[in-house]
Amino acid sequence: GGLKKKSIPQPSNPLKSFNWTKLSENKLEGTVWLDLDDVRVFKQLDLEDIEKTFSAYQRQQDTLNNNFRRKESEDDSVTSKKVKELSVIDGRRAQNCNILLSKLRLSNEEIKRAILTMDEQEDLPKDMLEQLLKFVPEKSDVDLLEEHKHELERMAKADRFLYEMSRINHYQQRLQSLYFKKKFAERIAEIKPKVEALSKASKEVLHSKNLRQLLEIVLAFGNYMNKGQRGNAYGFKVSSLNKIADTRSSIDKNVTLLHYLITILEQKYPKVSFVHNDLQSVPEAAKVNMTELEKEISNLRSGLKSVEMELEHQRNQPQMYGDKFVSVVSQFITVAGFSFSDVEDSLQDAKDLFEKAVKHFGEDATRMQPDEFFGIFDQFLQAFRVSLFINQITLKEQREKERKTRKAKENCEEDGEFDD
Amino acid sequence: GGLKKKSIPQPSNPLKSFNWTKLSENKLEGTVWLDLDDVRVFKQLDLEDIEKTFSAYQRQQDTLNNNFRRKESEDDSVTSKKVKELSVIDGRRAQNCNILLSKLRLSNEEIKRAILTMDEQEDLPKDMLEQLLKFVPEKSDVDLLEEHKHELERMAKADRFLYEMSRINHYQQRLQSLYFKKKFAERIAEIKPKVEALSKASKEVLHSKNLRQLLEIVLAFGNYMNKGQRGNAYGFKVSSLNKIADTRSSIDKNVTLLHYLITILEQKYPKVSFVHNDLQSVPEAAKVNMTELEKEISNLRSGLKSVEMELEHQRNQPQMYGDKFVSVVSQFITVAGFSFSDVEDSLQDAKDLFEKAVKHFGEDATRMQPDEFFGIFDQFLQAFRVSLFINQITLKEQREKERKTRKAKENCEEDGEFDD
Repeated sequence: GGLKKKSIPQPSNPLKSFNWTKLSENKLEGTVWLDLDDVRVFKQLDLEDIEKTFSAYQRQQDTLNNNFRRKESEDDSVTSKKVKELSVIDGRRAQNCNILLSKLRLSNEEIKRAILTMDEQEDLPKDMLEQLLKFVPEKSDVDLLEEHKHELERMAKADRFLYEMSRINHYQQRLQSLYFKKKFAERIAEIKPKVEALSKASKEVLHSKNLRQLLEIVLAFGNYMNKGQRGNAYGFKVSSLNKIADTRSSIDKNVTLLHYLITILEQKYPKVSFVHNDLQSVPEAAKVNMTELEKEISNLRSGLKSVEMELEHQRNQPQMYGDKFVSVVSQFITVAGFSFSDVEDSLQDAKDLFEKAVKHFGEDATRMQPDEFFGIFDQFLQAFRVSLFINQITLKEQREKERKTRKAKENCEEDGEFDD
Repeated sequence: GGLKKKSIPQPSNPLKSFNWTKLSENKLEGTVWLDLDDVRVFKQLDLEDIEKTFSAYQRQQDTLNNNFRRKESEDDSVTSKKVKELSVIDGRRAQNCNILLSKLRLSNEEIKRAILTMDEQEDLPKDMLEQLLKFVPEKSDVDLLEEHKHELERMAKADRFLYEMSRINHYQQRLQSLYFKKKFAERIAEIKPKVEALSKASKEVLHSKNLRQLLEIVLAFGNYMNKGQRGNAYGFKVSSLNKIADTRSSIDKNVTLLHYLITILEQKYPKVSFVHNDLQSVPEAAKVNMTELEKEISNLRSGLKSVEMELEHQRNQPQMYGDKFVSVVSQFITVAGFSFSDVEDSLQDAKDLFEKAVKHFGEDATRMQPDEFFGIFDQFLQAFRVSLFINQITLKEQREKERKTRKAKENCEEDGEFDD
């Protein structure tokens, strides 16, 4: 059975709202709420005092515009300050909305026109649109504002803004479409280099002869050094590359197997010591998070879909004067559609190449993600370069030492000549 | 078909190992590894130099014990430093193992006895056991050590330790059982207060008359202030309690609806303004993460199960002299089993009570977790107490002001009397 409507006393003027979330009536059974009788509380309350303290009408706020107006007509300031405005929306929200509007420096009429023309005059920068999306009138705002629309003149700035925007057909969808259109090129431009790095790095590890030679040499070292279960290997997990430096010489603990290996490369396989030149896209590819990349692609896809659906909707609406949504968006959809397909295709190519690369080294393509796989090579190449550098410094120091010894010896011999 | 064994040259003495992960042979097909021929690399390598540089025999390390020994017989120091030890395990692992052993200050024999007797002499503190668990000999260690067991005398300290422990039957399981036994009481003691807080707090919110009265008053305020969709409510989501302070007075923006509400409580419902006294377990319950709590209970359950299984195993083994595992552990299992059942039962009671509490307020018991549910009340109570405090200060200031005004007036009147 339904609950009977309670006889709640009505304030004579609108009050600020208490932003609670009502419990739906089908959830009341068996709860404390059915034991409560708020009507008896009203007898205890000084309703007049509540009405005075939490009136929706409040003194006009000192917004930037008001300051400006005050300077224009100094004489009016005292009276204008006393004018009470009607503000039915949440106080903090109204304040933030006012800040945004004063940054925008556009009248409600100008904002309305910018939205209808898909911002042909470039009045709405991307960051402002992002902000505007936070102040889309909510159902509860609209209900309250509709109730007071006869008092439009007395409404506070933020309230009036929300009311005006709520009257634009599909305001939120238009705003979202406009924001999507403005951000589209930027988002594509962020994805492309990642997809390219993935393709390039996959090709690099697949085709580098020096990398292949390096693996052969590491395999030889491991098989010579390791016994039993660990020995007699035909291949190793690529992650093993980053264990090479863990093995240290028993003569000098500052010398790792990696230093030793690089010395061998420089002496016997000089080309292999430049292996990092073959793998130049690896560091970039090591930063690619495939989950994030696919998420972003899928966000773009559903964003495009939403804009297309809104285009369908607007096509079937009678068009208001000055409404350029259909013409601007249909053109955008064509261009953006091509651009998006392009990126989708290159991602598929990159993924195929990546899978091939992972399998090429005998790793599990279903588990290895690009950041892990290329991260291993990237980490190895960094350590490789550091060790290469240290080896070269050490070599230089040795040569310098030898040169000095030789010189000292020569001087000796020269002295000897004089002595003779 | 199988791959033929490669003819890998063998070093004449054991070498340090390169800690790689071999690729299993069934993963080689179609990979780069089948194109590699490490055997031809050996022709390029100076194997003698590798053997010298990465020999498993290394100079004895300057451990604490060696320092001690050196002081004892200063004369021997030069010769003893030259003695080479056999170290086949990974260098860093050996070093960390040495650090642990020097902290423990027990001989291998003493450690062995402590493990067999389930540490009846309390030689192994919990943190040391935790460390020992990190140095359980691995399969690959054991293989290497077994190969060199005839050179036991020449083995380095860490190698000898790992070798000795590897010879204790079910060393790892014994160590784990001992660690579990030592930590058990502490883990139960950490769970209990959480379960208790959950039970108590659930009862508190279920039975507090003041909380019920408070909700009734808040309901009245909301129904008086909110219109349309938001109005005429029978109940609200408990999270709405933390929105009360978001509504500010239109007369003085420093006054929130919460301040106002508390003033009303103090005047008309003085008992309700002490509602926090009814809900003393709420802050503790707000910290209970049910997922973590159930995870810990389930970890304890499987830990107990493992120890029981090990007890079964040891019961069927011939017992070594001095092995007290069966007697100690069977007694522990009995006591711990009771204690664990106790905790499990109280958790079930607490969960039932919690579900009842959540449903009592019309919330969704399948979604609300204790930290969220009690967190809402906790946050509200904190804000409530702050506002209560601010109200009292403001009141005190007002009274002080009034007192001064009254006194000034009295002085005036006194003066007046004299004037008369």
